[in-house]
Amino acid sequence: MQPSLSLLYAFSGFTVLLAFAYAVYLCLWVKRQKVENVRIASIGELIRQGANTFLRREYAVLARFAIIAAVVIAVLLPAPIWKGNPLDNVLMALSYLAGTVFSALAGKIGIYVATMANTRTAEAARKGIRPAFLMGFRGGAVMGLAVVGASLLGVAGVLMLTHQTTALLGFSFGASSLALFAKAGGGIFTKTADISADLVGKVELDIPEDDPRNPAVIADNVGDNVGDVAGMGADLFDSNVASMAAALVMAASLDKVTGGTANTATVFCYAALGLLASIIGIATARMGRKGSPTHALNSSTYVTTAIYLALTAGATALFQGFRWEIWGASAIGLFVGVIIGMVTDLFTNDTRPIVKNVAKASRSGPAFTILSGLSYGFISAMPAMVGIAVSALAAYKLCAGLGDGYAMFGISMAAVGMLSIVGMIISNDAYGPIVDNARGLTEMGDLGEDALNVTDELDSAGNTVKAITKGFAIGAAGLTVISLLGAYLSEVNASAAEMGKALLSGFDVMDPTVFFGLLVGAAIPAVFSAMLMLGVDRNAQRMVAEIHRQFKEIVGLREGKEGVQPEYDKCIDIATHGALRELVPAGLVAIVSTLLVGFIGGVAAVGGFLIGNIVSGLLLALVLSNAGGLWDNAKKYIEAGNEGGKGSPAHKAAVVGDTVGDPFKDTAGPSINTQITVVSLVASLMSTLFLALSIF
Amino acid sequence: MQPSLSLLYAFSGFTVLLAFAYAVYLCLWVKRQKVENVRIASIGELIRQGANTFLRREYAVLARFAIIAAVVIAVLLPAPIWKGNPLDNVLMALSYLAGTVFSALAGKIGIYVATMANTRTAEAARKGIRPAFLMGFRGGAVMGLAVVGASLLGVAGVLMLTHQTTALLGFSFGASSLALFAKAGGGIFTKTADISADLVGKVELDIPEDDPRNPAVIADNVGDNVGDVAGMGADLFDSNVASMAAALVMAASLDKVTGGTANTATVFCYAALGLLASIIGIATARMGRKGSPTHALNSSTYVTTAIYLALTAGATALFQGFRWEIWGASAIGLFVGVIIGMVTDLFTNDTRPIVKNVAKASRSGPAFTILSGLSYGFISAMPAMVGIAVSALAAYKLCAGLGDGYAMFGISMAAVGMLSIVGMIISNDAYGPIVDNARGLTEMGDLGEDALNVTDELDSAGNTVKAITKGFAIGAAGLTVISLLGAYLSEVNASAAEMGKALLSGFDVMDPTVFFGLLVGAAIPAVFSAMLMLGVDRNAQRMVAEIHRQFKEIVGLREGKEGVQPEYDKCIDIATHGALRELVPAGLVAIVSTLLVGFIGGVAAVGGFLIGNIVSGLLLALVLSNAGGLWDNAKKYIEAGNEGGKGSPAHKAAVVGDTVGDPFKDTAGPSINTQITVVSLVASLMSTLFLALSIF
Repeated sequence: MQPSLSLLYAFSGFTVLLAFAYAVYLCLWVKRQKVENVRIASIGELIRQGANTFLRREYAVLARFAIIAAVVIAVLLPAPIWKGNPLDNVLMALSYLAGTVFSALAGKIGIYVATMANTRTAEAARKGIRPAFLMGFRGGAVMGLAVVGASLLGVAGVLMLTHQTTALLGFSFGASSLALFAKAGGGIFTKTADISADLVGKVELDIPEDDPRNPAVIADNVGDNVGDVAGMGADLFDSNVASMAAALVMAASLDKVTGGTANTATVFCYAALGLLASIIGIATARMGRKGSPTHALNSSTYVTTAIYLALTAGATALFQGFRWEIWGASAIGLFVGVIIGMVTDLFTNDTRPIVKNVAKASRSGPAFTILSGLSYGFISAMPAMVGIAVSALAAYKLCAGLGDGYAMFGISMAAVGMLSIVGMIISNDAYGPIVDNARGLTEMGDLGEDALNVTDELDSAGNTVKAITKGFAIGAAGLTVISLLGAYLSEVNASAAEMGKALLSGFDVMDPTVFFGLLVGAAIPAVFSAMLMLGVDRNAQRMVAEIHRQFKEIVGLREGKEGVQPEYDKCIDIATHGALRELVPAGLVAIVSTLLVGFIGGVAAVGGFLIGNIVSGLLLALVLSNAGGLWDNAKKYIEAGNEGGKGSPAHKAAVVGDTVGDPFKDTAGPSINTQITVVSLVASLMSTLFLALSIF
Repeated sequence: MQPSLSLLYAFSGFTVLLAFAYAVYLCLWVKRQKVENVRIASIGELIRQGANTFLRREYAVLARFAIIAAVVIAVLLPAPIWKGNPLDNVLMALSYLAGTVFSALAGKIGIYVATMANTRTAEAARKGIRPAFLMGFRGGAVMGLAVVGASLLGVAGVLMLTHQTTALLGFSFGASSLALFAKAGGGIFTKTADISADLVGKVELDIPEDDPRNPAVIADNVGDNVGDVAGMGADLFDSNVASMAAALVMAASLDKVTGGTANTATVFCYAALGLLASIIGIATARMGRKGSPTHALNSSTYVTTAIYLALTAGATALFQGFRWEIWGASAIGLFVGVIIGMVTDLFTNDTRPIVKNVAKASRSGPAFTILSGLSYGFISAMPAMVGIAVSALAAYKLCAGLGDGYAMFGISMAAVGMLSIVGMIISNDAYGPIVDNARGLTEMGDLGEDALNVTDELDSAGNTVKAITKGFAIGAAGLTVISLLGAYLSEVNASAAEMGKALLSGFDVMDPTVFFGLLVGAAIPAVFSAMLMLGVDRNAQRMVAEIHRQFKEIVGLREGKEGVQPEYDKCIDIATHGALRELVPAGLVAIVSTLLVGFIGGVAAVGGFLIGNIVSGLLLALVLSNAGGLWDNAKKYIEAGNEGGKGSPAHKAAVVGDTVGDPFKDTAGPSINTQITVVSLVASLMSTLFLALSIF
């Protein structure tokens, strides 16, 4: 059967509609459940307002940035407006803006449902773990369906309307640039609040987590939403769009050679089937009578994987022009993604020996918590890096036989494959902050020991799954940027051909310009993540000072006198202001250094820059995320009564590890992903200008 | 004037003799000073014995490794013995062994004089800071002169006797493989003892540093010698030999084309003049009446730099065939080395704002010490990486006009230039552990408050200078391995030409095999340094248990009862055993992974592997060394009475930072240098076999 592209557009549209319809259904289902406890309802309202206030202010800052960027794009890209076709420039700028708007909308929807599901999960916890799990999971699923539906809709829409793959890169850049700031800003917010709440609450005053007397406790719960829901949603929206955009750029140029549309059709077909598989996976997710929430989350991931592989195999058998090699490449990507997830689990799950080792080392003091955790973090990067390397090599070799250019297309399809189940991944990931919030609400609403145990178990599953999905996201970003590197090379050569300049065959590291870029590019993720961590550090110190002030000045707060409330909004304000102040410089460092290298060293230097950036970015993202997850769970393991339990010296040391790990895993680590993607897209978009204007 | 190569061999020989003669003179001068205090003499004897015991055991382990490696080399390199000329194989194996023996000798001499100078510096401290400074500096200078003399002698000797540049790579590999283990083993020893002594002494029992009641105190002093003197000597011997070997390999192939010997002559001439400049710099180093030790050390470095530039400029003007471009490249290297040193100073000197910031952050607890220090460490890598990148690019562009192959030769001469003043650098560096030991001896020998103040000031200068020399060493290693990458490529192509295979034009990162190697290679320094840090961690926990046992079981030790002594030798034993047990696996991981990548992926994959290894290795080495130095000095800054001073919460937090930083800066960071060099040399030596036998 010969699939027409319009048929596949229609099919993509159908799955998108299905996803949106199901998301609306789930959202209404969540909303229908009543929140009866007045205290929970009012705290939930505080969280909802705090999150929306932050989002509104953040989007106001980012809107200014996006408008400036859109104007620059309209003037300069894809070619300076005085040289090319002005309509192309307008389309490019509009695509860019569409990317930012879609990304912002996905974040907004996520926050909307997450701040509704948290209170309801807390209430459901009184009825038992199974209804509470379902509430948390379905709340997260709305986000998953919205993000994947929006990314497929956006990509297909831009391509149908503009018929230009360069506009796709513009859309993707819009998504990335917003994600960079949303992830960094949300990450700074959430960790500022989390660290400050813990530092004063648990360490200094010895009051429990989520105690309503703590002035930072609402900010902490808001942070879970703006960092882990909105930020993470923007991050995975970005990765998903970038992987599709890179694959479509290559598919279009291959189709141009062969004259058909088979490769473009393959990309859309696989992406739509991935969404369908995620919908089925989400719909069938249940916690068995004897099962655990971790088991339920993992098994629905495996179900989705199997459905995706079966559906795409069927499509490949059915449709003319679909190649088994391409299917193989996407299967390799998905397979390696699952392996990376398992390795992450090995390093961060507290039922495994490594977390126990770190907990044991904590008996000798915090220095040993840090040393051993960071060392295991270093080691944990290796299997994932080898996995990404092997999958790229295997996809390349598998598809190289299909003809010129298919090898790189194979790598991009491995990325699409890895991200095919992203709907499921996001659902699992957004589940985490919802049940984390629910735990806090249960504590603050005094729902009793049983409900607290239920939310504790749900929360612990959220942490384990979060580490796995994070490994998955980094792996996918790795493969995506490799294919973006291919996209960059083809953009450079397309421009070079037009300008009558020599074509680049690749990026030879023995060329000192490439090597120059390589070393500079490798330093950027380190500087970028350091700026974010220092931002958290500075901001947390401000908030700690504010908490101290409140405990000192508000009479009766410390003792928990009836009717005395801390000024929650002051802490939310500090987190918001600080995050907005700190996020812009870090993002600009990444973008400006790309431009500097490009205008000084030219396109070859930028090639080296991207490679160095990818290599050191992947390494640092893996190390920071895994070490952070490891410390978090080592602390939880000790709190469960091991190595002396709560309050022991080992516990105090583990708290230090956890505090260090917080900005590692929730601010710096995952932001590096986005930083790599943004830099790759800036390079591709600016390639013509670098060619024309560079000094060397 | 046309310089003959024999003339330059003779001149090199003359400078080597001069260096050795001056080293013997200084050594006798040190020895002539008497140690009058009986207690100091006896403790000094304990340190000497401990250091020699460790060296003897370490060398026994390494001798076995070296003999096995020599046999493998004799069978397989430069070509399998059944294919090539067996005599070449024997020469290669002998060169390798010579490299290991020279390196071991340099370490042995360093220990000999350092364990003599420490007691004498302590005694001299009673007379004042100037004689004490001179004693510490001259003790270190013996090491500097011995190392540089031995490296020039070895390189010239091997080349004169074998007339083969491949044998030079064998010599260099011998030096590197020993350095890898010596640095790693010494690094594990020294930090095991240091951390354990601090942890029990300062943190738990609140007794001063270097208190003789502490069972680990002698092991700590031994560690300074085996880690910082012997290990560091082997490290810089290795870098110096590798830079000369890489330059000579390229010079020989350039000379083959032009028919002269001018390029080889240039390398020897510059290296010999560098040694001469160091001798003059050392001979004129004095502490002025009003000066500080830091000032004295730094100004002698600048004097040496100026003399080197003047002498080489003179030689370039005088000799036919010497090119100003090459001189320029070596000057660029030296210049960038000095800049990197200054940047390191900016990040680690406690009179500058960054150390103060970290000290201030420590007020909020150890997590903030770690977060801020590590973040600044991340940022500190950038200027050095950009510096290395710029110097490589500038040297390349400067020399590219001279003809084919001169560009890479220019980079290698930048490395030679950066290392030209290594004699001075080592003298400054070895000064550190000598005065550190002297401080301990002054405390243990009860020489009074004045002498303690003198040794404190000397020690603080040692720490500052050490950070600078470490930055210098990493920069030099960076440039050296870039030129080793060039050497690897020419080795591969020489073999490929012989075997009738296609030549490589370079390493194109868009080739998925290269990219595969790149990702795997980038993970290795992380794993390698993690293994060393975990080794320190495990070993320190064993020693802490032993110290606890002694304080519990030896009656009167805690109270300092007259005549009660701890069992120092038990702690030395633990450090020795542990270091030897932990060093081998880490070293093997680096070597075996190179072989695996080579035999699986072939020469292109190894090219990528080397590049990934260099990039992530440089990044991690800089981050770990600088963060470690930063924490060390933040602690010292607080101890000087700032942010609450000794015993304050900020101080406790800074001690955690210092403990984490210890293995960062003295075990993992500097060992990465050697790991990169070893891997590069293994690749060059094995290139023929990879070409012939790889799977892909």
